[in-house]
Amino acid sequence: MSGALARDERARVAEITRRLARASPEVRIGIGDDAAVLVPTRHGDALSVDANVEGVHFRRSLLSDREIGFRATVAALSDLAAMGATPRALLSALVVPEALDDEALFELVDGIAEAADAYGAHVVGGNLTTGGELSITTTVVGHAPPSPLTRAGARAGDALFVTGTLGGAALGLALLEAGRREPAMIVARYMRPSARVHEGARLVGVATAAIDVSDGLLLDLERLCEASGVGATLRAAAIPREPGLDTHAPPVGRDALTLALTGGDDYELLFTAPPTVALSIAATRIGEVVAAPGVRLLDASGEPLPLPPVHGWGHSHSP
Amino acid sequence: MSGALARDERARVAEITRRLARASPEVRIGIGDDAAVLVPTRHGDALSVDANVEGVHFRRSLLSDREIGFRATVAALSDLAAMGATPRALLSALVVPEALDDEALFELVDGIAEAADAYGAHVVGGNLTTGGELSITTTVVGHAPPSPLTRAGARAGDALFVTGTLGGAALGLALLEAGRREPAMIVARYMRPSARVHEGARLVGVATAAIDVSDGLLLDLERLCEASGVGATLRAAAIPREPGLDTHAPPVGRDALTLALTGGDDYELLFTAPPTVALSIAATRIGEVVAAPGVRLLDASGEPLPLPPVHGWGHSHSP
Repeated sequence: MSGALARDERARVAEITRRLARASPEVRIGIGDDAAVLVPTRHGDALSVDANVEGVHFRRSLLSDREIGFRATVAALSDLAAMGATPRALLSALVVPEALDDEALFELVDGIAEAADAYGAHVVGGNLTTGGELSITTTVVGHAPPSPLTRAGARAGDALFVTGTLGGAALGLALLEAGRREPAMIVARYMRPSARVHEGARLVGVATAAIDVSDGLLLDLERLCEASGVGATLRAAAIPREPGLDTHAPPVGRDALTLALTGGDDYELLFTAPPTVALSIAATRIGEVVAAPGVRLLDASGEPLPLPPVHGWGHSHSP
Repeated sequence: MSGALARDERARVAEITRRLARASPEVRIGIGDDAAVLVPTRHGDALSVDANVEGVHFRRSLLSDREIGFRATVAALSDLAAMGATPRALLSALVVPEALDDEALFELVDGIAEAADAYGAHVVGGNLTTGGELSITTTVVGHAPPSPLTRAGARAGDALFVTGTLGGAALGLALLEAGRREPAMIVARYMRPSARVHEGARLVGVATAAIDVSDGLLLDLERLCEASGVGATLRAAAIPREPGLDTHAPPVGRDALTLALTGGDDYELLFTAPPTVALSIAATRIGEVVAAPGVRLLDASGEPLPLPPVHGWGHSHSP
């Protein structure tokens, strides 16, 4: 590439930096040097990284660039929520096709900034490079709590809970794929997700194990059970469904229960706690932890239901 | 994707985790949960992210998968060296084409592990996703020193230094492109780079500004000068060239001085310090910091030399 083009790249980086930089007493050295430096944190930093790749995790035909940046950032922050950690900083590495113009790039960056601001995370670093496909790889840094939530603490006899409602993001995507933007509340579950950061912090010292539901309830429950060395029974009727799920799923060829069980991108928290525990957040009890490994789904009369054949999420976004 | 494939993916992640996980008193919660948690560090964590994209930063035809993983990791660690920070942890986000087989993926992961081990960084997190082009995005975490090195502290009258020798990695790449693997020492500068972590730590409290030479001496010097609000004069004859550069550059159509000035991927440290300072590391004085902005290149008699027209590096790797 020519020196002139290298200078354009520097101008782009300067503009991105301008849009992302915020002053903060948390940050000793912010974005723009070889590395950022944070102030020390009492219980150590919690760290996670998450990649969002065009054609795999999102399609530009269905989302605005701002939404793409926003969603990628929230998805990463959700991993901090699942540990009970409080967001403090993040770094965004962007791979950008040559064809992506400045306007689209800066919209994407504004989406990142909006999500970071919403959760109190300071963007302290990033990377910009060209590549064949658009991707956003987000590293999040949080204040760890004294006793972080992990996936590994569930014990037989614990109750199983989930925050909020499930299936909304998957139905929102299905609606977008069908060319519909309504109901707006459901579509927004996909386009503008939330991370349960507040709830995660309130679960520290209460929940025995936690995970965020990014790849679907069943798959993330399996992960939690595997890490804890336990199994679980799930009561199908108790699973909180996104309002409108039963009405709006069939017209786009989807089954509501399957969406609630396997739909990804909801970013609710799935957690376990002793059944007698007093929760200080809103959550729905959806089942129990048992000693025998594996996940069993039960109907209202306690009879086993077949598990949906497909679970896993990310790759169903492939065009 | 099918449930069966999702399970394959989990087996891949399990194997990658097995190859990367190390026990450490630095790490409260390691790789495998929603986030990792480090023990608190005295002066705060230093953080940086760096992406290596196939076809932009490397070609699989010229490097082994192990070298690709190793190089990507060292490139990221070099940013910590430039701050005087000591590596403690890293997170690797891999985007992997469907066609990349397990053997290649695990080789790449072993290259990451080898570099992490070499510099005392514990791999505490990662991400694996499919995508159209192979990329490795590395987030590094270091113990920040009490007064981190930055790009911004150079003052007129400071002397300008660089560690090691320059141009070797760029010539190594040119040799590989010409189908040659010799001289092995020069090719290794490209295939198996080093990060100047030890030297960076020894420069804390000594250097007034520092940057790692990842995109070529001229471009990185411009960055340092811009951040410090100064300019620099560079003595061409003083620039330490990779041994053999003058002999081996012309046969592959390269000019030795141009390689030393603009070749990237050397990962040496460029730094400024008062001219009378006693350095505890090996470095070569190559010029001076001046008040007037811009970089001037001087010949042995102090006459100005033209700057090479091309500077910038990363994108010249495009196939």
